[in-house]
Amino acid sequence: MTETLNQSTDAAASALDRTAGEIVADLTLEEKASLTSGADFWTTKPIDRVGLPSILLTDGPHGVRKQRAGADHLGIGDSVPATCFPPAVALGSSFDPALLERVGVALGEESQAEGVGVLLGPGINIKRSPLCGRNFEYLSEDPIVSGVLGSALVRGLQSQGVGASLKHFAANNQEADRMRVSADIDARPLREIYLRGFQRVVEDEQPWTVMCSYNRLNGVYTSEDPWLLSRVLRDEWGFEGLVVSDWGAVNERVTGVAAGLDLEMPASGGRTDAELVAAVRSGVLDERTLDTAARRAIELVQKAVGGVQADASYDVDAHHALAREVAGASIVLLKNEGAVLPLAAEASVAVIGELARTPRYQGAGSSLINPTRLDNALDEIRALAGPAAEVAFAAGYGDDGAASDELTAEAVAAASAAETVLLFLGVPAALESEGFDRDDIELPAAQLALADAVIAANPRTVVVLSNGGVVRLSGLADRVPAIVEGWLLGQAGGGAIADVLYGVVNPSGRLAETIPLRLADSPAYLDFPGEHGHVRYGEGLFVGYRWYDARELEVSFPFGHGLSYTSFEYSDASVTTDASGLAVRVTVTNTGDRAGAEVVQVYTSLQGSAVVRAPRELKGFAKVTLAAGESREVVVHVRREDLAYWDIRVDRWVVEGGDYTVAVGASSRDIRSSVTVAVEGDSSAAPLTMNSTIGEVIEHPIAGEFVRQALAAGDSAESALLADPSMFKMMASFPIGRVASFPGSPFGRDQVEQLLAAANAGPVTP
Amino acid sequence: MTETLNQSTDAAASALDRTAGEIVADLTLEEKASLTSGADFWTTKPIDRVGLPSILLTDGPHGVRKQRAGADHLGIGDSVPATCFPPAVALGSSFDPALLERVGVALGEESQAEGVGVLLGPGINIKRSPLCGRNFEYLSEDPIVSGVLGSALVRGLQSQGVGASLKHFAANNQEADRMRVSADIDARPLREIYLRGFQRVVEDEQPWTVMCSYNRLNGVYTSEDPWLLSRVLRDEWGFEGLVVSDWGAVNERVTGVAAGLDLEMPASGGRTDAELVAAVRSGVLDERTLDTAARRAIELVQKAVGGVQADASYDVDAHHALAREVAGASIVLLKNEGAVLPLAAEASVAVIGELARTPRYQGAGSSLINPTRLDNALDEIRALAGPAAEVAFAAGYGDDGAASDELTAEAVAAASAAETVLLFLGVPAALESEGFDRDDIELPAAQLALADAVIAANPRTVVVLSNGGVVRLSGLADRVPAIVEGWLLGQAGGGAIADVLYGVVNPSGRLAETIPLRLADSPAYLDFPGEHGHVRYGEGLFVGYRWYDARELEVSFPFGHGLSYTSFEYSDASVTTDASGLAVRVTVTNTGDRAGAEVVQVYTSLQGSAVVRAPRELKGFAKVTLAAGESREVVVHVRREDLAYWDIRVDRWVVEGGDYTVAVGASSRDIRSSVTVAVEGDSSAAPLTMNSTIGEVIEHPIAGEFVRQALAAGDSAESALLADPSMFKMMASFPIGRVASFPGSPFGRDQVEQLLAAANAGPVTP
Repeated sequence: MTETLNQSTDAAASALDRTAGEIVADLTLEEKASLTSGADFWTTKPIDRVGLPSILLTDGPHGVRKQRAGADHLGIGDSVPATCFPPAVALGSSFDPALLERVGVALGEESQAEGVGVLLGPGINIKRSPLCGRNFEYLSEDPIVSGVLGSALVRGLQSQGVGASLKHFAANNQEADRMRVSADIDARPLREIYLRGFQRVVEDEQPWTVMCSYNRLNGVYTSEDPWLLSRVLRDEWGFEGLVVSDWGAVNERVTGVAAGLDLEMPASGGRTDAELVAAVRSGVLDERTLDTAARRAIELVQKAVGGVQADASYDVDAHHALAREVAGASIVLLKNEGAVLPLAAEASVAVIGELARTPRYQGAGSSLINPTRLDNALDEIRALAGPAAEVAFAAGYGDDGAASDELTAEAVAAASAAETVLLFLGVPAALESEGFDRDDIELPAAQLALADAVIAANPRTVVVLSNGGVVRLSGLADRVPAIVEGWLLGQAGGGAIADVLYGVVNPSGRLAETIPLRLADSPAYLDFPGEHGHVRYGEGLFVGYRWYDARELEVSFPFGHGLSYTSFEYSDASVTTDASGLAVRVTVTNTGDRAGAEVVQVYTSLQGSAVVRAPRELKGFAKVTLAAGESREVVVHVRREDLAYWDIRVDRWVVEGGDYTVAVGASSRDIRSSVTVAVEGDSSAAPLTMNSTIGEVIEHPIAGEFVRQALAAGDSAESALLADPSMFKMMASFPIGRVASFPGSPFGRDQVEQLLAAANAGPVTP
Repeated sequence: MTETLNQSTDAAASALDRTAGEIVADLTLEEKASLTSGADFWTTKPIDRVGLPSILLTDGPHGVRKQRAGADHLGIGDSVPATCFPPAVALGSSFDPALLERVGVALGEESQAEGVGVLLGPGINIKRSPLCGRNFEYLSEDPIVSGVLGSALVRGLQSQGVGASLKHFAANNQEADRMRVSADIDARPLREIYLRGFQRVVEDEQPWTVMCSYNRLNGVYTSEDPWLLSRVLRDEWGFEGLVVSDWGAVNERVTGVAAGLDLEMPASGGRTDAELVAAVRSGVLDERTLDTAARRAIELVQKAVGGVQADASYDVDAHHALAREVAGASIVLLKNEGAVLPLAAEASVAVIGELARTPRYQGAGSSLINPTRLDNALDEIRALAGPAAEVAFAAGYGDDGAASDELTAEAVAAASAAETVLLFLGVPAALESEGFDRDDIELPAAQLALADAVIAANPRTVVVLSNGGVVRLSGLADRVPAIVEGWLLGQAGGGAIADVLYGVVNPSGRLAETIPLRLADSPAYLDFPGEHGHVRYGEGLFVGYRWYDARELEVSFPFGHGLSYTSFEYSDASVTTDASGLAVRVTVTNTGDRAGAEVVQVYTSLQGSAVVRAPRELKGFAKVTLAAGESREVVVHVRREDLAYWDIRVDRWVVEGGDYTVAVGASSRDIRSSVTVAVEGDSSAAPLTMNSTIGEVIEHPIAGEFVRQALAAGDSAESALLADPSMFKMMASFPIGRVASFPGSPFGRDQVEQLLAAANAGPVTP
């Protein structure tokens, strides 16, 4: 469908001459309705009469999945070749927005070359549970990481005149019953965890489109939730683009359009367009609402047409090289005891595991890219090993994952003969896909048995992992000297793994999600994936490391963790504040003998906060590359708005005043320097009412004095009782209005009413 | 106020001649309103004109707290002497409904003697968090224990013509902000955990009154929640009694009466009665609603008057003896290594700890009883020790809890000189009260330091605990051979402790709540007590042992645990089923050399359940006393309704069919025998709709076959795709109606509609 935009370039010119509003004014009701749903699986409807072309939207996010012409296949058919960049699970671990922006640019170039107007991505949903089948498509368990990296991808992509589609909006954190389940989330976790990343990307980057999710949120389909699509997304965040449904996410079309859904995808054969027309005619739907959706659809087409680069093409080799660079920056070196890595070029190694030869490099489902090339680690290891080095290979298990005595014996023999074993383990492709969740976080039993045999034969075993969601490493991690977390690394991942193993690349990835000791420790363990159409997010704010830290649970590897072949020292941090937030400064020194990159992480906490908070919340990070011996001051800016919590009493963000602890470190559990800094709070004084407790009233500068005096002066038994400290502690929780009604109360209701009025009138006298 | 009932006996006669409805018909609007709030703190309003006397309600629950005449003191003043039975924390550990029924009878006798018409209790709220300041007033973390034991107390009390007040209805599981906080609880945990015990007591025992709680439930004050007070309590459970507000729990009186609140306590000086009158006059409140409340108030008076036993008195000594018996049955022997207990009469012991001399035997707040007598453990130990036995005492810490070098030295000297140390530790009174929660579950640092010194001086140390809420024992438990959990044991607790220490009583208490390793492991740790007026019950169903078991967390001592001086063996259990539920039979043998009592516990689980369940849920228990060597078949009946879960789809209890595991054991983690039994489920088939997923449709006996055939017959690429197993797995979550709308769908919407109609019409053809 490269033709779509090109063929209509002439007509498009006229559509660009006028504002979308002017065009809408020219359209019939039926034409307007027609603009708000797809022509087929992937294109919008043109209106030749007004010179409006069709544009093409295709799946991303980590490559251009443009279906071959004519092959709809329910949207999951064959696609044209494109660079398969590392999926989000890897990108998130890079902690490198600059690099991700380059990926975005490359995706934009490939989109241009294929005539794609909107590339569907990035996906920035929070990894609530390690079981979510689509975790490989998401960046992190942390909203700041998701927001910062998601912004970088959008920025890069849109810089090429191609629209992003920020998805899946919102709270699509599981695949189980994803088309119907209601994510039941309280206001604070919803705002502070699940929406925070979306808010950041929308406010910073204005993605051309936002894609609503399949699920319901607190009982309402996101595709028809006016609170989400209009009040939050547009009124609060100022979103100016178009809301597109996830493919098949529309439940009731008219309700959806009324709520703020602009474009239904894919086509519904005209059925739901007709519903819109009928709804306008019957007065159920305000025509101006449809006009708005149509206008946004036209504006999107105008942006896409305006962004078209004629005769665009891209450099397949350069993109492959970029994919390798990104993959290398995303690999996380979890463990490296005795500096078993990097390998010497001349080392004799046994590469064991079919995954070294037949890589898993992406997950299944709508994001499945048909790669332009495909590296495997075995070939790349052979390429990097010295000419004299012995590189043996044993599959260990079959393509189907099954082991056999023969395969095991072969692997054991190879392991015994080698200096170092490179053991490739991972999650089979059949277990990680869009559409369903995993049942556990275990590596396959056959692989674990193979690992037992191989480690017994040669303890100098480096485990190299391929997995979209985290796997349990307890029981394995303490028996091998090194573990390389290779995630799913895209088409050039094999080369990147070899680069890291041989030290061509100094690993710099950091965990964007915690690796727990066991699934039963994970925050959502008991209510994931819910039942009977509802999933309660019972862990609230305590997602990912917030949970493990607050519950003081041991983990296999903490959030933010990742080793390097060099070492870094941090000087004492310092923090300055201004209206924009905090500037956190720390000097980092590469104390080793080779260049490397460190990810400096800034966490905050607030002792004695009026609200529940995690012990550490990531508020910013910076990846800095340092030559051997080099020192550099790193400045991490923490936005003031990122210090805010969502105050359910007033339904808005509030920065609580107080002495914040700013902790700078190399992981959530490797804090190198902490500073306390005073932050002025937003004003949020609430007036006293008859429902204010005695405890609250007595703390009030004006009213408190009165109550204290009343109690001191009172000669009744009741006054004496309330004046008694332990009795007072018990009565302090009573609303003053209720006590005032009690027989024998030291103060009457009229008296209390006057008192409250006086107190609320202020001002506070010293 | 013993006079209240007696003085009005003549008039009362006339009030008993007529039905309450007849009396209501005679009353003015003002009179009716007046009947629905108190005359003062503790009495209802009489209406002499119709011969209606006043009745007296007083605090319980573990004794009669009747305030001295004229002393209102905000309801917390001095009270007349009464037997202080063990508070609920101890009663719950007895696991002995027959014994609790006797306590109820005794409470009834004392109420009669004091002219009390309604004794406010029992409190059966679930111990959601160990921090709840009022846990000492509640029975258990388990709803079956709470329900069965609560029923026994009500049964005993009401058998004496005195009304119970089942409280605090509902979800009053914390003291923090208790007057305003909204307990936000999902339907299943609300029904299955927090309301289940109330339902059982109401349905089985018809308490004369139910007391609504202070807090809100899912946003609504329970005092004005029509769902709770009318739909659930009356329509579903058939409650026929009166709903009384907790003292000061009324928020908006008119709303409350409309919702089903019958009686406001205490008096509001006529202010809210006038609001009711005005509301009826203005049409805001239906007069018939007020009539109903007034009728119930009259019926309550009639019951109380009808139940009056003239010249009632009670045997103070006998009640003290009963209090000692109950306390002895409630003590939990947590640990007894090397059979250090029971003590030989001639053993030389050092009793250390002021708590041995100055006992903590109840908690503070509205339940504080002025005891008729008060035993302390030190005197009782001296009484039971043989005449030649050395019984030394050292306070160790002062009355105020503070230690000193001198006190420590004295304690160490005493410990060193004795054969066995009896070290009394506990939570200071100031930390456990109605009105506020604890901040932690630690024993005081001074006591722990004392314990270190004492244990170092003499490792043969028996720790005896006095505490209303559980305390952390990790770090202590493995350093002493024996621990006696003495809770708060009422006025005769000192004697009961001595009885257990010397083997006069063979301990038979069992933990009605888990003792966790640390607070951070507890289910509600991160969202207790909430903030800004809301507390989310994020752990859902997983309260108490359900959490620790499901999360596979180690605990210090599990739910149901408790040792004896003898030992018990279980034969293989067997289970029979009938319409009423399960009959679980197991033969228990006392294999030791002394008589003792075992608490046989029956837990169920259902592998592969359609809903989330705890690994083990207590469904019944039986306490059986066996002579040395005796065997007896114990039959525990599990009610079919207790197997049901609350189905949120249909908003009712549903027994899921399947093979249940019935586990019989001596604690939740000491299962002795398991049986699998098939249980027929309630029918709950839901019709297929356009929102049924492809996965659901394909499992349907009629529709599934059609879809399978359509896919098999289809020659389109789409059919082929859906027929592919891994692709099908991804698409299975799509509602069939949505796929039918997709371009290229193998089936159209009309076709699907016909299919669903045919499938729903049934019958299933084989």
